[in-house]
This record gives sequence, structure tokens and C-alpha cells, in this order.
Amino acid sequence: MTHALVSTTLQEYGSLTRAALERYLPDREPRRHLYDLLAEYPRRPGKMMRSSLCIATARAFGARLEDALGTAVAIELLHNALLIHDDIEDGSEQRRGKPTLHVLHGVPLALNAGDTLTLLSLRPLIENATTMGARLSLRILAETERMARESAEGQAMELGWRRDNTAEVDEAAYLEMVLKKTCWLATIYPSRVGALIGAGDGIDLEPFVRFGFFVGAAFQIQDDVLNLVGDWKRYGKERDGDIWEGKRTLMIIHLLRESTADERERLHGLLRLSREEKTAEQVRWIRARMDTYGSIDYAGQIARGLAGAALHEYSLVFAGLPASRDKQFIEGIATWVLDRT
Amino acid sequence: MTHALVSTTLQEYGSLTRAALERYLPDREPRRHLYDLLAEYPRRPGKMMRSSLCIATARAFGARLEDALGTAVAIELLHNALLIHDDIEDGSEQRRGKPTLHVLHGVPLALNAGDTLTLLSLRPLIENATTMGARLSLRILAETERMARESAEGQAMELGWRRDNTAEVDEAAYLEMVLKKTCWLATIYPSRVGALIGAGDGIDLEPFVRFGFFVGAAFQIQDDVLNLVGDWKRYGKERDGDIWEGKRTLMIIHLLRESTADERERLHGLLRLSREEKTAEQVRWIRARMDTYGSIDYAGQIARGLAGAALHEYSLVFAGLPASRDKQFIEGIATWVLDRT
Repeated sequence: MTHALVSTTLQEYGSLTRAALERYLPDREPRRHLYDLLAEYPRRPGKMMRSSLCIATARAFGARLEDALGTAVAIELLHNALLIHDDIEDGSEQRRGKPTLHVLHGVPLALNAGDTLTLLSLRPLIENATTMGARLSLRILAETERMARESAEGQAMELGWRRDNTAEVDEAAYLEMVLKKTCWLATIYPSRVGALIGAGDGIDLEPFVRFGFFVGAAFQIQDDVLNLVGDWKRYGKERDGDIWEGKRTLMIIHLLRESTADERERLHGLLRLSREEKTAEQVRWIRARMDTYGSIDYAGQIARGLAGAALHEYSLVFAGLPASRDKQFIEGIATWVLDRT
Repeated sequence: MTHALVSTTLQEYGSLTRAALERYLPDREPRRHLYDLLAEYPRRPGKMMRSSLCIATARAFGARLEDALGTAVAIELLHNALLIHDDIEDGSEQRRGKPTLHVLHGVPLALNAGDTLTLLSLRPLIENATTMGARLSLRILAETERMARESAEGQAMELGWRRDNTAEVDEAAYLEMVLKKTCWLATIYPSRVGALIGAGDGIDLEPFVRFGFFVGAAFQIQDDVLNLVGDWKRYGKERDGDIWEGKRTLMIIHLLRESTADERERLHGLLRLSREEKTAEQVRWIRARMDTYGSIDYAGQIARGLAGAALHEYSLVFAGLPASRDKQFIEGIATWVLDRT
């Protein structure tokens, strides 16, 4: 099965990236207030999807694995840096099955550790110059800056909706937010820089935005669904955490649209409440309404549609390349994101 | 007088950097939750010392002003990004005469704006390649990563002392913290990258660490003194804010060393309290002890000694260069940092 190949490849490329990443984690003082903190998230179990997609795309376009490894490390470093800051911004309590970094060490030290990890991610990208030359490594740095800007815009959109308790978030706005906040880092950037490493500066990167958007949006929606129905131990985050945090998900948007005027009014009132102001009974009520109106099934259908669109884009972007296990992996990713439990 | 020349140069280079910086602040959505926030600190009045020192050093070593302008912009962007995050970490309430960004917009949006500004600072550094070539611009990026790491280590040291209410902070530890937290960004990095721009990749950058340390440490100590005795309107931060925040300054270290056992015990107890737990009477008591023991005068003497050492290093590093207004400015900076009110 293709998904067995996806899992094997994630394990293989993930292990190689993890090993290479260790060399970038400074082994010196101040440990207890900085460098031990940086190492926390990267050493917790993670899927390594972003870095593996980068390596596979580079190889599918003809690069050697070692050409892409530094960039794969940078992706994981930056991803983990953003997770630290996102967890603070969202007030999240669990990450990869353990307490979040700011819960363990307080906001000031966790925030500073996130900053350090962000800028540490530049090291492998700068060192790229020794193998791929100064020009191409600068091009990848420019892609990195672009991706970081897109992610920040998406995060600002989502935080803004929560802060203002925006009523009129529709599916188009939701998908634009996901494109920016999730897809650019999770799928678009890894495949774009992978293609640059494999094919060089001349390649047209526009098609990778579409491919990455479809895969990444399916991934995000499935992630939000797992937050409601997943096995907590395997999922690694707090069950129903998104409802506690007042996050605008596709399920919430569907529910707001489908529910009665009275329910909608109550829901708006609840979305306005902070985590501390909410009760477990209120969270259960929202969750039960989603079952009544089929909001989770609806989100699952949208995710499957996106995965189908991703397969179509895959055939356009990767069609001309020679058959390889890496191509199969990239194709498999498009539906694997829905298969996670 | 030299200090008139320092002020004129700061105004001239500062205005040019501010104008160039505006081009990097995105003029698009999401404004209210992201891009308006980024622009706040850079548009408030600031000394522009860091960027001016970079431009002056580059010119003293023979570069044209326009060769250094992009890097000067990057310095200000990164400096402002770190200020946003520092203000959150320190719980500061005032910055440049107005409320801090997280007080105005909440921690989540301010944190995200800081991240965006951090990575936006890469743009001018990447664009450097068009004028100075890919290799030298990558070298400056590597310097940037080094500086960010030093700053983060210094910030972790200081936050760690406060978190643990560390009793044994001595002057050596304090100066190491200042070297990392303040000097690398304020003086060492600007003069190092300025020298790279003016003299090219071959120049030995070690002497700039000493010069920058002496200037930067004098600057930081004077800044801490101004927090206690400065004119609030001109200083732009909350009076006695450092005492409220429990910051380890040279004055606190001196006071702990000079005071009686009873006083030391009370002082330790007070340093443990958060801003919210402290009373105005307790802050006044600490401030009065500093007067009794001459802690502020003592810090002033150390700062003057450091400025003298900076002048000595200046003569070693810049001696061989042709006379120029930029050389005079750099020499003037060493004592100007003590002259601020």
C-alpha cells in the first residue's frame, strides 16, 4: 500500500533529519534557561512530514539526499520555533503528549527559546552555500523570509478573529487563513525549496503553491477533526482543546451557518469566552451540536475533496519526472494526511 | 564639541535609515492585527545609534553610504523586534514614551508581530547580494545569526536570575550578561558588519568585540542609571521600572554587597516579588538604600572607566584609517553614551 511507503519514508527521512538536527543544538551554557528548552520540542515525537517532503521533492527532481538535509533541518527548527510561540499565543497546554514549553518554564524563557530557535534555523541555510553555492542558498533564504511572512499573516488573521470574536468568518476566509498559517510552512515551502535544490534556480515555483495548498489544507482540517475525535494518547494534544481555545475551525463555521438563530447566539457568546471563563458543560454542548448538524462529517468531505485536488495538481507538477520512490511518497502524502488517527 | 557632531550624525544617518526602513514595512492586509503593529516601535522616536554606528564604521573603512544602508535597516528592524519580545518577557509597560505593544494589543498579537519583524529583517540582508555580492551578504547573515544567539544567551541569563532569584550574581557575571544581551546587538555587530562592508571579508573582526563591549557596557550601565534618575519624559520608560521588575543591575549588585545582613535579607525578599506583589513603599526603600550606599555613583564610575577603555580600543582599531567625520563620530560615541540625560 502507498501509505505503508509514506510511513516508511517518513521514518527514514525523519531519522536522518533528526540526527542532522542534533548537531545544530548548542551543547553549552546557559543550558537550564535556554539550550535545554530549545531541544524540548524537536526531541519529542513528531511526524517529520515537512522535512521529509522537502527531501523527497529534492530527490524527485534529481538532487542527492545530502543536498537537501540542511534545508530539511532548517524547516524542522523553524517549525518547532513557531510551535513554541503559537502555544503561547493560543494558550495551549499540551504539545506532542507533554505540557507546552511555557507551561513548563514560564512565558519569558519559552518566548526567548523560540526566538533563539528561529534564528538558529538560519545556520544550515547559510551553510548550504558550501554545497550549492552562494546564489542558490540566498534564493532559499528569500523563500524562507516569504514563508515566514505568510505564516505570520495567517496567524494574525486567526488571532484577530478570536480577539474580536469576528462573526462573519466564512469558508473562503478560513481557507485563506489556512493557506497562510498552515500550508506555507507545512507543504508549500518544503516542496518549493526541494524543487529549487533539485532543479535549480530556473524552475517555476507557482504550481507548488496550488499543490501545497490542497495537501496542507486537507492536513489542517483533518488535524482539527482529530482534535475532536482523536485518540488523545496518539494525537498528543488536549482533546477538544480547539473548542476550549475558541478556535475558528471549519466545524465551527459550519455549525454557525447551520444552527438556529438561538443556538447561533449562544454559540457566539461562548466563542467570546476565554479558556478560563468556559465550563466543561459549555464545551460539551458545542461538541454535541456539531454531532447534531453533522459538522465533523462535513469537514471530512471538504478534506477529501482537497486531497483529490492535490492528486490532480501532483499529476501536473511531477508528471514529467522519472518514476521513483520519492514520487510515490509525494503522491501518497496527498491521501495519507486523511488517514492519520 | 565632539558630542554635537555625534548628535548631528545620529540625526543624519538616523533619518536616512528611517526613510529606507519604511520601504520594508508592508502596506497591505492584515493591517489592524499585524502590519500596523510592526510599524509602531520603528516609528517612535529612537536614538538610531546602532544603525548609525554601522554606517559610520562602513564609511570609515571606505564604503559608500548606500552600501551600508540595507544592513542599517536590518539592524533597526531586528532591534525593534527584540524590543517587542523583551517587553513581553520583562512585563514592561512603557517604551519610548508610550505603552508597550503588548499592553496596547495583547501578548498574542504583539508576539506574532515581533516574529514577523524578526524575519522581515532578513530582506535587506538578502538584497545586499545585488550590491556587495552573494558571498559577502551571506557572511553578514552569518554574523546576524551569531549576534542573535549571543543576545538570546544574555536574555536567558538575565531572565534566569530573576526567575530563580539568584543571590550570587557578581559583577563578572553581570558584565558577561551585558556583553551578550546588550553589546552584541548595540555595538559589536554594527561595527563588525560595518567593517565587513567597508573592508571586505578579509578583515579581523576580533578587536571589534572589545571595542563594542566597552562602549556597549558603558551605554547599558548609563541606561540603568537613567532608569533611576532620568527625566521620564525624555527617557521614555517608566521611572524606577527596573526596580519594579526586579532587574539585576550594577546598582543592585553593589547594594547587595555593601548593605548590612538585615538589609540584604530584606532586599532578597523584595527581589523575589513580582511587579504586582511589590508596593511603591518597597520600591522607594530600595531606591533610598542606593543613595545611602552610593550605588548609583559607583555604577557611574564603572561606566566612565569602560568609556575610557573604549577610547583606548578605538585608537587601536581605527588608528590606521584616514581622518574622517565618521571616525570622529565613532570616537565621540564612546563618551557620548555617558552624556545622555
